Amino acid sequence: VPEEVPVTGAAGDARRPVVSLLTDFGAAEPFVGLVKARILAECPDAALVDLTHELPAYAIEAAGFWIERVHAYFPSGTVHLCVVDPGVGTARRILLAERGGQRFLAPDNGLLSSIAGHPETAVRAIDPGWLELAGLGRPSPTFHGRDLFAPLAGRLAAGGISPEQMGPVVTDWQRLDGDGPERGPFMIRGRVLFADRFGNLFSNIELESLMDYWTWGVHVGGAPVPWVRTYGEAAAGSLVALQNSFGVLEIACVAGSAAALTELKPGASIELRRPGSAPRPGY
Amino acid sequence: VPEEVPVTGAAGDARRPVVSLLTDFGAAEPFVGLVKARILAECPDAALVDLTHELPAYAIEAAGFWIERVHAYFPSGTVHLCVVDPGVGTARRILLAERGGQRFLAPDNGLLSSIAGHPETAVRAIDPGWLELAGLGRPSPTFHGRDLFAPLAGRLAAGGISPEQMGPVVTDWQRLDGDGPERGPFMIRGRVLFADRFGNLFSNIELESLMDYWTWGVHVGGAPVPWVRTYGEAAAGSLVALQNSFGVLEIACVAGSAAALTELKPGASIELRRPGSAPRPGY
Amino acid sequence: VPEEVPVTGAAGDARRPVVSLLTDFGAAEPFVGLVKARILAECPDAALVDLTHELPAYAIEAAGFWIERVHAYFPSGTVHLCVVDPGVGTARRILLAERGGQRFLAPDNGLLSSIAGHPETAVRAIDPGWLELAGLGRPSPTFHGRDLFAPLAGRLAAGGISPEQMGPVVTDWQRLDGDGPERGPFMIRGRVLFADRFGNLFSNIELESLMDYWTWGVHVGGAPVPWVRTYGEAAAGSLVALQNSFGVLEIACVAGSAAALTELKPGASIELRRPGSAPRPGY
Repeated sequence: VPEEVPVTGAAGDARRPVVSLLTDFGAAEPFVGLVKARILAECPDAALVDLTHELPAYAIEAAGFWIERVHAYFPSGTVHLCVVDPGVGTARRILLAERGGQRFLAPDNGLLSSIAGHPETAVRAIDPGWLELAGLGRPSPTFHGRDLFAPLAGRLAAGGISPEQMGPVVTDWQRLDGDGPERGPFMIRGRVLFADRFGNLFSNIELESLMDYWTWGVHVGGAPVPWVRTYGEAAAGSLVALQNSFGVLEIACVAGSAAALTELKPGASIELRRPGSAPRPGY
Repeated sequence: VPEEVPVTGAAGDARRPVVSLLTDFGAAEPFVGLVKARILAECPDAALVDLTHELPAYAIEAAGFWIERVHAYFPSGTVHLCVVDPGVGTARRILLAERGGQRFLAPDNGLLSSIAGHPETAVRAIDPGWLELAGLGRPSPTFHGRDLFAPLAGRLAAGGISPEQMGPVVTDWQRLDGDGPERGPFMIRGRVLFADRFGNLFSNIELESLMDYWTWGVHVGGAPVPWVRTYGEAAAGSLVALQNSFGVLEIACVAGSAAALTELKPGASIELRRPGSAPRPGY
Repeated sequence: VPEEVPVTGAAGDARRPVVSLLTDFGAAEPFVGLVKARILAECPDAALVDLTHELPAYAIEAAGFWIERVHAYFPSGTVHLCVVDPGVGTARRILLAERGGQRFLAPDNGLLSSIAGHPETAVRAIDPGWLELAGLGRPSPTFHGRDLFAPLAGRLAAGGISPEQMGPVVTDWQRLDGDGPERGPFMIRGRVLFADRFGNLFSNIELESLMDYWTWGVHVGGAPVPWVRTYGEAAAGSLVALQNSFGVLEIACVAGSAAALTELKPGASIELRRPGSAPRPGY
């Protein structure tokens, strides 16, 4: 994840507002299209960027992983609309987080755990009274994506409202527990988060902050897996480990599917062991 | 469905033309991309909004349901390109409907039945002679989405043409039969239209015009189903009935799939019974 | 494929840059969204058009088929970002092709074989030294779509860079072998390329350049298939042959799926036989 994305395009001055969308709405029904219609009604110039709408239904953790790992590639000022919301229509709050010039709208259900936990993030809970005044007090009870998140994202993108007026800063936002790896002096034990469409297994082990990570041994299902820098460095069919383009440990199969080859499912254990740190007998 | 969508964005003045797209073209081939290319060639500023392209092939009724239920969320002036068109290349006509500032382009096969049946809608059949003059007289026989609907939508959105010149008002457009529920004094019997990606069962029973609908009993497969306002109001795994965000009766399973739980398919019967109106023995 | 697409929209003057995207990235992860974020960072006004992202993983030949068959529908000046790239991060080059006012970016793996083989195409190999100077010298080894192709496409679209500075003209770009049909005086033998979502079988037999193609007999699995101009000209369930809207011979089943009916897979043989040219006994 870049610290800053350099912008050198000739058209860099007259910025167009960007709104990204990350949901579990799927493509079979026009749910996403309705969200976009309402954003455009508020901000006709918006550039709308789909992150994905194919998250498994209610996949709060995966949504949180992706928004943390992708937001820095967007231009400053982007509004990220993140709706995986099994509690829609109940008393759960709506959060607006700000960090480094980027804005995030999401239900208060743990989705923003990683974004909100950063020391430079300001998190607000949107005030129901303000929603009422803003003409958004009577959403349908089952589609806040269309009736609340979309007009809020559109108005934020258009500059018609500012976070300060929308609600108070809060610190009691919902946290997701247990999503980091276990870390010991000789071993880090993480888990498979999901397989991507190529069958590459994404883990929850971040390698960016681990000095000389390639000196550690990777063990999957008890067997060692060699490090590579990119897929083309090993023979077709080989299982390899690498730091992927999102900064985490990935298990891949060259020109194949690691998910199919290993049959590992989300939650399966992946270990990093320090050189020379053989497991104890009976481990 | 809102009577009007309030627009309050700061950028609300210099409206950008919006074109929505509703087809059965799928995402595996570049069919939709070609439609967009030709719209942008005619109207470079257009904002293009995908409703869905994943309708089952030839699903005219579902296309009609969605365009009726979603169009009012779009800014006035939007052009809706609706192409589910098994008769492509035959003598079937192309319709242009206008209602409340919105324009609809579709083949004359029943897709616009609900839109066109509204008393405020004007429906025109596009004149083949005019198409010829407009340089659109020789489309490929199998892809009118790209070769006719797209340039028509683009020119309408750009303001380069007006409906009056495109063809005469007609009243003999194709109607879809039998899509409403049976209505009696003590019972309304509708049917399942489809399941959405969450397994929620959409019915063809509109609740907006039924006073005190929650006093009626919902019966699915002979068993009563309790009303809720939103999913979070019942226990996980419960089957519930609600007025969904599109105004129709929906059968849902809290944190689960009603389609999987009930095994009901499109066409299955759903009944509303007036309180005290127990079925006759042997019913 | 049109020789030129006429543009008559009222908004035709102040063109907006168009970038098309053709990849095997899928929709389940935000890979495409990240590519778009970086294009917009360089060229905020760009209109982004998805061709498809659902190509089978590593389907270089299908990507090449589509980009050859669709590019002419895009406005002049369009940048086509084509990334099916199993060799990402290795020494394979990145190509920039120009033809008729359109620009194409792709890995040098055969994807641009058909585009580059046209006598009016200029092909350049992007110079790694220039990438370094442009601030693009350190991409992640596994996601050049985001880290190289996207910023290059965005800068080209924005007009900030010109092809001449990016690298030398080359003629040793990678060719795909064996993708044309066998042609004899009495027979042309091609093959099924793929089935589209309707089950229509696309072949590699181009009909545009074959005079009076409808006088030839079409044979699939040894049985003759009648020619039609469009689907509606034969009875439901019939197998028919036609010149499809991309100029190639297509085998279709009216109101059904030819792929399901014939069980033909990609690679299966399709023959055109001159009238009177019955196969030899034992053929």
